[in-house]
Amino acid sequence: MLADELQHKIDFKTKPLGALGFLENLAHKIGMVQQTTSPKLIKPHMVVFAADHGIATAGVSAYPQEVTYQMVMNFLGGGAAINVFCKQNNIDIKIVDAGVNFDFPEGLNLIHKKVRKSSRNILDEPAMTSEEYQQALENGKSVVKEIAETGSNVIGFGEMGIGNTSASSLMMSQLFDIPIENCVGRGTGLNDSQLQNKIDILSKAIEKYPHLKTADEIAQTFGGLEIAEMIGAMQEAYHQNMLILIDGFIATVAISVLFKKNSEILNNCIFCHVSDEFAHIKLLELLNQKALLNLNLRVGEGTGCALAYPIIQSAVNFLNEMSSFEDANVSNKE
Amino acid sequence: MLADELQHKIDFKTKPLGALGFLENLAHKIGMVQQTTSPKLIKPHMVVFAADHGIATAGVSAYPQEVTYQMVMNFLGGGAAINVFCKQNNIDIKIVDAGVNFDFPEGLNLIHKKVRKSSRNILDEPAMTSEEYQQALENGKSVVKEIAETGSNVIGFGEMGIGNTSASSLMMSQLFDIPIENCVGRGTGLNDSQLQNKIDILSKAIEKYPHLKTADEIAQTFGGLEIAEMIGAMQEAYHQNMLILIDGFIATVAISVLFKKNSEILNNCIFCHVSDEFAHIKLLELLNQKALLNLNLRVGEGTGCALAYPIIQSAVNFLNEMSSFEDANVSNKE
Repeated sequence: MLADELQHKIDFKTKPLGALGFLENLAHKIGMVQQTTSPKLIKPHMVVFAADHGIATAGVSAYPQEVTYQMVMNFLGGGAAINVFCKQNNIDIKIVDAGVNFDFPEGLNLIHKKVRKSSRNILDEPAMTSEEYQQALENGKSVVKEIAETGSNVIGFGEMGIGNTSASSLMMSQLFDIPIENCVGRGTGLNDSQLQNKIDILSKAIEKYPHLKTADEIAQTFGGLEIAEMIGAMQEAYHQNMLILIDGFIATVAISVLFKKNSEILNNCIFCHVSDEFAHIKLLELLNQKALLNLNLRVGEGTGCALAYPIIQSAVNFLNEMSSFEDANVSNKE
Repeated sequence: MLADELQHKIDFKTKPLGALGFLENLAHKIGMVQQTTSPKLIKPHMVVFAADHGIATAGVSAYPQEVTYQMVMNFLGGGAAINVFCKQNNIDIKIVDAGVNFDFPEGLNLIHKKVRKSSRNILDEPAMTSEEYQQALENGKSVVKEIAETGSNVIGFGEMGIGNTSASSLMMSQLFDIPIENCVGRGTGLNDSQLQNKIDILSKAIEKYPHLKTADEIAQTFGGLEIAEMIGAMQEAYHQNMLILIDGFIATVAISVLFKKNSEILNNCIFCHVSDEFAHIKLLELLNQKALLNLNLRVGEGTGCALAYPIIQSAVNFLNEMSSFEDANVSNKE
């Protein structure tokens, strides 16, 4: 059995049993995904999906909506945090317009997958029509399919969208039947009264849609276009048997939609970062997952994945490169 | 003021205020050490000190003493965990014989700084005489001095020595006046009765030396030759104004000896990893420090430093390479 062979290979490396901790779990997981005791990470990619949210105008965010397109331009110019970390770790970065409320000029290194300019305001109507949601899923899949064709076997997902923590909190609340106040955080920097205001607004949104049943209905109603494209992208990454790197709260909510349909997708996922926010901690508990890093990041963009990547590479490297007790003539435990 | 300039530079990067979390603290710290808003990490080094312990024969470890020299040979052959991680992250690794109970053959890429073969058995006499302790400090200093002369400004320290968690637990207990049972862990894999046996043995050792006063007396009495050389090495690294990367429990105990003499040394230290063991968590609390990683590692060798290094580099990179709101024409918080 491969699982046993992997464990044996890990256990007989020149170190105390289990002493590489989380790296041993990672090495085992990656070996199982790739069905080999000598896994490799090939052409790592980071895909950042951006879109605007109808609800952003309701005062749920500390930043104005225009920051979404401005940050897309910043990604394309190479000046954002995710650019710096991807460059450092040799991760190929792709920026996708899933629904930014802006007409980007021609000639940019941007993947055009805009379904519409901004999702709809959920205080008035569902964030997406059924057709828009399906289109977003397909768009996300097509992006990953093209990347998989280059031979890449590891992919991380990031997002940018003013208002998307609100969408994610609503989705978490409905997917797992948790009161909205336990799914809401300060996002990128709300004060106490702003936080209470956000909770009040989101509570109204929930009351408006009492009969949602499936995970897809929840994502269509409360999600955003970048979240929906990310869901499609993650589904395709699983279909292609890639390793899927999960960043923060929003990416964890996106994978939760797929988890509700097929929990086995988690076999391919590495959870890269957990913040100190209650909602994200709770969500990882619900998925029974432990994150690699806890650096108190609140950037999104996929930064947690890019920062965790060298450690994931270390897990693969120790499995392939460390000596065994036998190779190195080291005595094992008495 | 440089501290304010650094904070301003960090705060006006294109990200929500404080959103790079721990990386922001690191960037600030590194800038302060190097006295610049554009710090650089130059020629990173890892020094692994190895020595044997007289107490190892008393049954405090799960592994036989011969593992110390065998692992040194493994380091020199490139097959240990620390070799793999240093190679991946372009960290120059040096192996130092501080007191291994073995005659190494000529022609190895080993730095010969052996004070004596093994520290003395603390159940009979102090681990080192005063002269041996001073010699070990000097040996450690000389190793770092040579590295600093190459222009290196960042250095991590690892250790190998069967029995050295016992030495470290004793030192922690005496340095901070904490009952020995709260300073002892399972090390590299003791069961319940072995753990109780270890506590009993260490309690006897403590009773034997009731009148220790200074941190140096404690280190001389209970430490080991690799720990003493590490203390000297850390002191020289501080003298050279290098960034000092602190690995796990043993390295944290070593820096604690210097902290007791001059708490400002912590300004130059980055604590790279905290394990799940109570003693290490408690020790970091006493030093008022937070570690970068928590991967449940129990290897030593400096592995926590080598794994954390890319993230430390990321902290420097975001400070130097990310755009500001102004550069990128991104709107700041409303």
